[in-house]
Amino acid sequence: MSGGERLIYLPLGGAGEVGMNAYVYGYGKPGKERLILVDLGVTFPDMDSTPGVDLIMPDMSWLIDRADQLEAILITHGHEDHIGGLGHFWNQLRVPVYCRKFTGHLAHRKMEERGADPEQICIVDAFPETIEAGPFGLSFLPVSHSIPESSALIIDTPVGRIVHTGDFKLDGAPVVGEAFDPELWHDIAGDGVKVLTCDSTNIVVPHPGRSESTLGPNIRKLVAESSGMVVATTFASNVARVKTLAEAGRDAGRSVCLMGRAMLRMVSVAVETGVLTDFPPVISHEEAEDIPRENLMLIVTGSQGERRAASAQLSRGKYLGMKLAEGDTFLFSSKTIPGNERSVLGIVNAYSEMGVNVIDDTSSSYHVSGHANRPDLEAVHDLMRPQMLVPMHGEHRMLRRHMEVAEEKGISSIVATNGTMLDLTGDTPRVAEHVETGRVYLDGTQLIGALDGVVRGRIRMALNGHVLLTVILDEEDEPLGDPWAESMGLAETGRSKASLVELIESEAGQFMARADDKVLLDDDKLDAGLRRVARQVCVEEIGKKPEVTVVISRLA
Amino acid sequence: MSGGERLIYLPLGGAGEVGMNAYVYGYGKPGKERLILVDLGVTFPDMDSTPGVDLIMPDMSWLIDRADQLEAILITHGHEDHIGGLGHFWNQLRVPVYCRKFTGHLAHRKMEERGADPEQICIVDAFPETIEAGPFGLSFLPVSHSIPESSALIIDTPVGRIVHTGDFKLDGAPVVGEAFDPELWHDIAGDGVKVLTCDSTNIVVPHPGRSESTLGPNIRKLVAESSGMVVATTFASNVARVKTLAEAGRDAGRSVCLMGRAMLRMVSVAVETGVLTDFPPVISHEEAEDIPRENLMLIVTGSQGERRAASAQLSRGKYLGMKLAEGDTFLFSSKTIPGNERSVLGIVNAYSEMGVNVIDDTSSSYHVSGHANRPDLEAVHDLMRPQMLVPMHGEHRMLRRHMEVAEEKGISSIVATNGTMLDLTGDTPRVAEHVETGRVYLDGTQLIGALDGVVRGRIRMALNGHVLLTVILDEEDEPLGDPWAESMGLAETGRSKASLVELIESEAGQFMARADDKVLLDDDKLDAGLRRVARQVCVEEIGKKPEVTVVISRLA
Repeated sequence: MSGGERLIYLPLGGAGEVGMNAYVYGYGKPGKERLILVDLGVTFPDMDSTPGVDLIMPDMSWLIDRADQLEAILITHGHEDHIGGLGHFWNQLRVPVYCRKFTGHLAHRKMEERGADPEQICIVDAFPETIEAGPFGLSFLPVSHSIPESSALIIDTPVGRIVHTGDFKLDGAPVVGEAFDPELWHDIAGDGVKVLTCDSTNIVVPHPGRSESTLGPNIRKLVAESSGMVVATTFASNVARVKTLAEAGRDAGRSVCLMGRAMLRMVSVAVETGVLTDFPPVISHEEAEDIPRENLMLIVTGSQGERRAASAQLSRGKYLGMKLAEGDTFLFSSKTIPGNERSVLGIVNAYSEMGVNVIDDTSSSYHVSGHANRPDLEAVHDLMRPQMLVPMHGEHRMLRRHMEVAEEKGISSIVATNGTMLDLTGDTPRVAEHVETGRVYLDGTQLIGALDGVVRGRIRMALNGHVLLTVILDEEDEPLGDPWAESMGLAETGRSKASLVELIESEAGQFMARADDKVLLDDDKLDAGLRRVARQVCVEEIGKKPEVTVVISRLA
Repeated sequence: MSGGERLIYLPLGGAGEVGMNAYVYGYGKPGKERLILVDLGVTFPDMDSTPGVDLIMPDMSWLIDRADQLEAILITHGHEDHIGGLGHFWNQLRVPVYCRKFTGHLAHRKMEERGADPEQICIVDAFPETIEAGPFGLSFLPVSHSIPESSALIIDTPVGRIVHTGDFKLDGAPVVGEAFDPELWHDIAGDGVKVLTCDSTNIVVPHPGRSESTLGPNIRKLVAESSGMVVATTFASNVARVKTLAEAGRDAGRSVCLMGRAMLRMVSVAVETGVLTDFPPVISHEEAEDIPRENLMLIVTGSQGERRAASAQLSRGKYLGMKLAEGDTFLFSSKTIPGNERSVLGIVNAYSEMGVNVIDDTSSSYHVSGHANRPDLEAVHDLMRPQMLVPMHGEHRMLRRHMEVAEEKGISSIVATNGTMLDLTGDTPRVAEHVETGRVYLDGTQLIGALDGVVRGRIRMALNGHVLLTVILDEEDEPLGDPWAESMGLAETGRSKASLVELIESEAGQFMARADDKVLLDDDKLDAGLRRVARQVCVEEIGKKPEVTVVISRLA
């Protein structure tokens, strides 16, 4: 087919999980395909599985090994799970990065922060502007989402058109940015769509999605009827929501103050790039201090309970001169991402103790999702009538459900999780190959492999505590002095009420005294024996089996 | 009033949080009150704040110090957050424990497990049976909840009647146990209720609760329409739900097999104590192996994704001879408790990869809550017409909301979180005193204070990694040999690509060589200096500031 050339699709991240999106398309002879990369995102660590880690990124080794085949990187929108890895990997990929203007501003900074060349960011206008990258013709098709200038990609290949939706929803009145234009989509599908690579995040939600603009009246009413200070939080990048909130404040005769670095930055980037117009006037936090609280509205960062964001700081007391008080209102114009429940509830309860009225999204009146729900996804299937549908963005259960929905319509589909390379040349998707993929962690300044054991060691210390045991042997390999023990993360005393480390030292001393040359001359045997002694004492005394590090110093 | 005697209420756990319930009531002269304790529960640790901890319990010091004033312990029902601490503290309290029969079976075991005397469990029939404990007359009023024989307590005091609801819902057809009997409640309120101490768990849920019996038809339909094996999970202690599930299996012509120790145990205790009758016949897992999958239904433990429970084991492969396959159905007849989302979703996705159809509670068709929602709570307020309402069971925001609901009805109310002692003698609740309370951790076999720093040390190691640095000084206080470093939970190499521990050893060696006697003779100065050196190397090399333990061995 096509002279032995093929069209391939390979997710390196984001398929079989939510987050760290990275999708490769390629066209050419097998193994010699010219490639493009769509999105290069991160995902966030948690204490359960990745304590101390700063960021989680896809393992890009496969693509880095083939950097000479890569033509371009395309970024659909500026959320961290689509753009966050750009600066970290660009120096190993070294190709132009295409995106629209607002995303470009954010991408520019991502590159700068990590010492990559920000001049490699190329700003592209929306469709019909088209760029060429090897065998591909590429254009950005505006979609609605919870950040400005989100785009689907139209990827024209020698064997047909691919539409890669990116994150999207159908919104006829998105407050900021272009409304959904079914006629344009219909035109784009005109000559036939070979592959629809489609967002699956909300496939399990059965009802149609709601427009961003439905929130305005609810939020306006809430703010108008509140008596004390009103504080609202949402994702800073949801510029449309920030605008709705600010307008509600202004309409209620309140001065509006933005707090939190991300909030100030996103609004200013959105104004600079022209995506945000008519934003109500805002005041600084210094000015806000002089405004009576019933005339004030704060719009703050920290909708997910992030410890250092404005909402968390306010829940602990004063922040930049502001302090909440009884009768004030705090609005979460956001949903809580699974895993962040405890942090968010911690803030809610702190506010409750202050007598602040907290309004969350239980009523669905103050937040809408940025993703297309099942009926909306089906509407897009019907509009695009693709030959094949490849579900992306989502956990396995979501991809599988999306495949089922497509197949019920007679569209050929397949679940391809990270590392599953599909051959899309023919009429149905076919698994071409399984590629080794995984995750790498940014840990401090270093990238470490998820399987390196570094994080596993940390988790073990967190669960079991850590005992350190030092012994010294003299030039004749005889014990010199007594063993020395220290512990961290363990009770100081146990069953016998004696000091745990002293008990370990004493048992270790007896072990050393009993040990013959076969043991004393062999570091491995000594280590194993001392480790066993330390664990035994801990099990008997406190019922725990700690991690034990034995340091054997031999005076040479 | 009453000759200087007073009626007090003191939550030691469960007020201002969900879990580890423990409520003290007392009557007598201030400081000499005769006391009773209602419930003695635990709460569960998490990796975020309590890694490695086995159980979290209320700090019972206040009551232990006054054990001679204590008359009795009453347990409202057998959930861990009401009964789990009984065995751990009984030996320090040493008074009779009153409960109903089913709860008594569970309490018996809790006592045995911790070396307390199980003969101290006294079984009490439901109201009108009454026991005397000091100045109190006590009876158990049957309520519906998600475990058999839950009870409210009627606490008659010299100054009036208290009704302490325990966990409850209003259910006219609870499948197992007594239906809600509004006339009985009305009679109990007859002579006037002084205080209603009331469950607040679901106060923020605006719609009336649904009966346990509404689930039967939905579950029956689902099981009847499933083609492969059906596996369902719920809390093992929700015996009514287990019965509904088993009946659905039987009605669909399937053999029913219970899997997981807790599941087998709860059903057998319920049968033994007579609360569960007409349970469909069950087969063992050995027998189940010979039954065609379309004729089989498993009811398993692990609705919260617990690693070692049956549902998690099945998601990883074979468990007791059983293995799920494409076309099977897995039903979560349960809700996911906040904090368990990741574990549950991990299982859902593992099943999705096997091709198993997972049905969760998104549709609300297969699970109902065991707690009264706001309209139900209001119905109880109206039935009981208490003089005062004390909200319990719940985070601060729930207690506060419950207080507001009561006050809107003209009932005097107050938010009293753990440690807030109320004087309930008069017509309105009054704060009498603030008592020091907190949490203790069962860690291995030891109880440790939440503020002891033990767990903080573990969290630090998990976030930052741990470096151990050993130096030896000879009899003249001169460095002997080179310093020795080990690390755990840190990358092996960093920026310079050299071994991190070797770099630390080398820098530490230079520090020792440069150090003068003022440093070499002073353990604190040596420790601080070496710690700084180790951290500096780590910051430069890998961008992390680890925990550092320095071991200084002096050859005496």
